[in-house]
Amino acid sequence: MITLDKIYHAKYVLSDVIRETDVIYAPHINEKSKIYLKTENLQITGSFKVRGAYYKMSQLSDEEKARGVVACSAGNHAQGVALAAQKAGIKAVICLPDGAPISKVEATKSYGAEVKLVEGVYDDAYTEALRLRDELGYTFIHPFDDELVIEGQGTIGLELFDQIPDMEAVLVPIGGGGLISGVAYAIKALKPSIKVYGVQAAGAPSMRSSLSSGSILTLDSVSTIADGIAVKKPGEHTFEMVSKYVDDVVTVTDDEISAAILALMEQQKLVTEGAGACAAAAAMFDKVPIHGKKTVCLLSGGNIDVTILSRVIKRGLIMSGRNCQFTIELIDKPGQLELVAHTIASLGGNVTSVHYEHANAGQDVNGCFIRLELETRNHDHIVEIRNALLAKGLNIVNG
Amino acid sequence: MITLDKIYHAKYVLSDVIRETDVIYAPHINEKSKIYLKTENLQITGSFKVRGAYYKMSQLSDEEKARGVVACSAGNHAQGVALAAQKAGIKAVICLPDGAPISKVEATKSYGAEVKLVEGVYDDAYTEALRLRDELGYTFIHPFDDELVIEGQGTIGLELFDQIPDMEAVLVPIGGGGLISGVAYAIKALKPSIKVYGVQAAGAPSMRSSLSSGSILTLDSVSTIADGIAVKKPGEHTFEMVSKYVDDVVTVTDDEISAAILALMEQQKLVTEGAGACAAAAAMFDKVPIHGKKTVCLLSGGNIDVTILSRVIKRGLIMSGRNCQFTIELIDKPGQLELVAHTIASLGGNVTSVHYEHANAGQDVNGCFIRLELETRNHDHIVEIRNALLAKGLNIVNG
Repeated sequence: MITLDKIYHAKYVLSDVIRETDVIYAPHINEKSKIYLKTENLQITGSFKVRGAYYKMSQLSDEEKARGVVACSAGNHAQGVALAAQKAGIKAVICLPDGAPISKVEATKSYGAEVKLVEGVYDDAYTEALRLRDELGYTFIHPFDDELVIEGQGTIGLELFDQIPDMEAVLVPIGGGGLISGVAYAIKALKPSIKVYGVQAAGAPSMRSSLSSGSILTLDSVSTIADGIAVKKPGEHTFEMVSKYVDDVVTVTDDEISAAILALMEQQKLVTEGAGACAAAAAMFDKVPIHGKKTVCLLSGGNIDVTILSRVIKRGLIMSGRNCQFTIELIDKPGQLELVAHTIASLGGNVTSVHYEHANAGQDVNGCFIRLELETRNHDHIVEIRNALLAKGLNIVNG
Repeated sequence: MITLDKIYHAKYVLSDVIRETDVIYAPHINEKSKIYLKTENLQITGSFKVRGAYYKMSQLSDEEKARGVVACSAGNHAQGVALAAQKAGIKAVICLPDGAPISKVEATKSYGAEVKLVEGVYDDAYTEALRLRDELGYTFIHPFDDELVIEGQGTIGLELFDQIPDMEAVLVPIGGGGLISGVAYAIKALKPSIKVYGVQAAGAPSMRSSLSSGSILTLDSVSTIADGIAVKKPGEHTFEMVSKYVDDVVTVTDDEISAAILALMEQQKLVTEGAGACAAAAAMFDKVPIHGKKTVCLLSGGNIDVTILSRVIKRGLIMSGRNCQFTIELIDKPGQLELVAHTIASLGGNVTSVHYEHANAGQDVNGCFIRLELETRNHDHIVEIRNALLAKGLNIVNG
């Protein structure tokens, strides 16, 4: 059974191992609220996962420690278990599907874990991890549905009481539900008037759907930029705890998550992964009633691939009207390109890419298309440029 | 005269205004050293500048406060002065050249300052600021060459003694020299054995060159990605203080700065601007003798435009071999594109962009060129793909 005692014990056990991450005021995430960010993206390994993994390992018997642990993950849990095992002097084997990104494999190895690449998908790696547990006596470290793991994550709740004692609401991302179970338990045990809200990705709403139906559901598929919380089925412990201790669970779309990632970078200089930005996205887009309240958004992690980050920045720029594309149909005669370029330049648009091609069969043989990418100031600026192009008699076919 | 007393006093004055930014261990910036990051990029306004600006304003007479302050900057100093004035309840006018980016103008306004756009370049805005000082009695807040401003920045040195008492070396970026003057003074006053190193951009080495020549030099021009430290001429106070208290000043290239920005994002989840990443760049590329030493890199700011950040990420990916381009000359016959695509795919390269065009006049009329952009693992992987393409008889003209 999960107890406050054990969460305090976890805090003591973890004190030499993890960082007590800072809480940072973020005035512009939602100007009607007072938003603070708990920066677990700045935790060692780049996510909170090391807390639960280390506390779990610390409570193994000497015999279990001597045999080692096994886990199955391609993400933050893998790195959390690997580093926790390294710090505890325990052997760790991490099973990964063989298609896992090289960067994740390397990161996990860099913390000293043995990586076992398993042919197939996640479920195959999971099966192999259980086989190793049964045949070699390793302890399996579950990513969320384990009381000790949940107690480890709950230490974040205790830190928040030290850091923002007068907080009124806390927003926490939910994948399997381990993080919010621990945090909500600690918070409700000490001060039940503080609201605790869970946030899921709209493309992976397993806890939200399970709560609605009153029992644990398994989603057929999940699809979201927030890969860290793309979980098809909540845990049994975590479903029960979220039912009991969490005030509401809401969802955010990938576009909202992208906008939050960009806002956290621009306003707060913090890199977050999709899952890590969900709580801030829920605050930004008013998914929960936090106006006038001192609110903590838990940034759970920052392990985002930089190539994905580049795409997210671009999507965020488009959403905020600072990047746009126009495809314009032109007559193939001198001066047309100049007309377009002049119109855009005179309004302060900055062209960053031009693609020019002749029309396909079935279209005017003299026709051609120009696709432009622009840096703009905001949505109004785009409308202004669009109207100016139309006023010159140009045919905008897209954008 | 700058004194330790006054730096302590500044720390007291600033205690309710600024954040005591965290120090974060960064194990992989230079594995032969022990690197800690002082995260002034997470300071309010996104840079350390608010410290000096606020301390300066706090020491004005009531009459001076009632008249207001004026400054000239398109960057961090503008935002620092604007916020400091807002917190101190003082009117602030910031003069900017009229070509300043909209985002900087908006950020400065958002802190409540009056922005005056001046026709021309930086020097014209500076002249206008001095005119306002003389005609309207505003106090001019110099960005670096002012004892009170220097004392304000020096508070970072005192915080470091609390946070990393056994530090052995500190790396600090230098533009005009205000930050390092304050930090070096505080550190050398309390523990002279700690080494203090300055870091400049290779494209703006005004302090480095002035030190070499023994007197203050003015550079003809500066050019660097680190716009926050692109200063043509050191201050008089700061030149004297750096001469006295700083152990050495080194330079880093734009490529090195880009690599550091990327490393800080990927490894530490921190967004830094060019100037903000210089100290980490010097550590990464072994510009100073810090092996075996507990070393602090001061990340001075994080106000980087996200569109520039996108380009920096791309440059960093290229530098680390995770992105590359090949231009290949093909004979215009069926199967050539497939041959290229198959060769790359079989080695695990991920094609992200293809540009295909026929040869120009003067080249084989059947010739054409394909330009490919790839995601790759590292430089060895690029060589492997390159050799495989050559082995198929393909003519790589570039890349």
